[in-house]
Amino acid sequence: MPKSIKDILIEMKNMSELMVDLAYSALLFNSKDAAEEVIKLENKVNRLNYQIKKESLLAARTVEDAEKLTALLEVGEAAETIADSAKDIADLVLKDMRPHPVFKMVMEESDEVIMRIKISEGSELIDKTLGELLLATRTGMTVIAIRRNESWIYGPDRNTMLSAGDTLIAKGNETGRALLIKLANGETKIEDLEYEELTED
Amino acid sequence: MPKSIKDILIEMKNMSELMVDLAYSALLFNSKDAAEEVIKLENKVNRLNYQIKKESLLAARTVEDAEKLTALLEVGEAAETIADSAKDIADLVLKDMRPHPVFKMVMEESDEVIMRIKISEGSELIDKTLGELLLATRTGMTVIAIRRNESWIYGPDRNTMLSAGDTLIAKGNETGRALLIKLANGETKIEDLEYEELTED
Repeated sequence: MPKSIKDILIEMKNMSELMVDLAYSALLFNSKDAAEEVIKLENKVNRLNYQIKKESLLAARTVEDAEKLTALLEVGEAAETIADSAKDIADLVLKDMRPHPVFKMVMEESDEVIMRIKISEGSELIDKTLGELLLATRTGMTVIAIRRNESWIYGPDRNTMLSAGDTLIAKGNETGRALLIKLANGETKIEDLEYEELTED
Repeated sequence: MPKSIKDILIEMKNMSELMVDLAYSALLFNSKDAAEEVIKLENKVNRLNYQIKKESLLAARTVEDAEKLTALLEVGEAAETIADSAKDIADLVLKDMRPHPVFKMVMEESDEVIMRIKISEGSELIDKTLGELLLATRTGMTVIAIRRNESWIYGPDRNTMLSAGDTLIAKGNETGRALLIKLANGETKIEDLEYEELTED
């Protein structure tokens, strides 16, 4: 069943925002992980633009229809241009082996990291929600997106359930990164983590 | 004093994300307010790109420097292209007097609104933080950005203090919109609002 045009536009909005966020984050935190996710997302946006084109053509019945529907095609083109630009930024991170001192300074001043990690079979994160896990409180890492097969969960909330094979994209600091890797690999039990306070996150 | 390149990049990231968010929101919620803010933000991004160019030229001392610093110019160009594309989407909302039924459907299906409102002298919002005001809890409106003179506060949090003359950009529903307009105009006292629960927001 084809998605409604509204659904496509909402997904396009989410993917565009995620790409822009990840592209700049890749640059600011020198993260090849984030840059590679941007490249993957570009394909996704291109597919959404294809769907927009198809739906526009299907919806056009009269000359007036067609004139007005060109606006929809323009949105698709704008989305693709945004995706291309985000990819240009990500490419700089991927190709630059020895960055200019100016960039190094930018990157080294930051305590923040952005990371991605795949949830292995046997991880305690599986079949639990982010809220149940108190993941942000326990690790200091905020999950900003989840890639599940070919689809993306953008801006997951406390009710989002994690599955084996999910790729988490998260922001936080070096300590949190190490903890999250261990949890996702099933090397640490969530109960073994110390944390400041047991509040809902 | 010139800003550091890192500061410029962080501001560029925030402004790019805000433009993309507002441009699609303008389209999805049929908001000329949001579209007009996108146009204002485009000038801001152009100024940031100018700063990036200036700092790059100042930092280049050798041929090797210059080669590596072209990457920084490319980031600025990408940011400007993203801004242009967001403006293209906003322009569609501003120029389209009689949208195609497809768009109408997209807009009418949504309960969400996006709005902007300027805080008048005499409003109770002045010199209080978003946290103190419990604004989200009381009105259901989330402030996503604040424009203050020529600068922007992106993603304000509970510690952000509001001032007279601030323009709030907020998302929520029709009921919340009406409440926030009254509060910003000084026509309602915050204590007079009913709200479900007194939790921190």
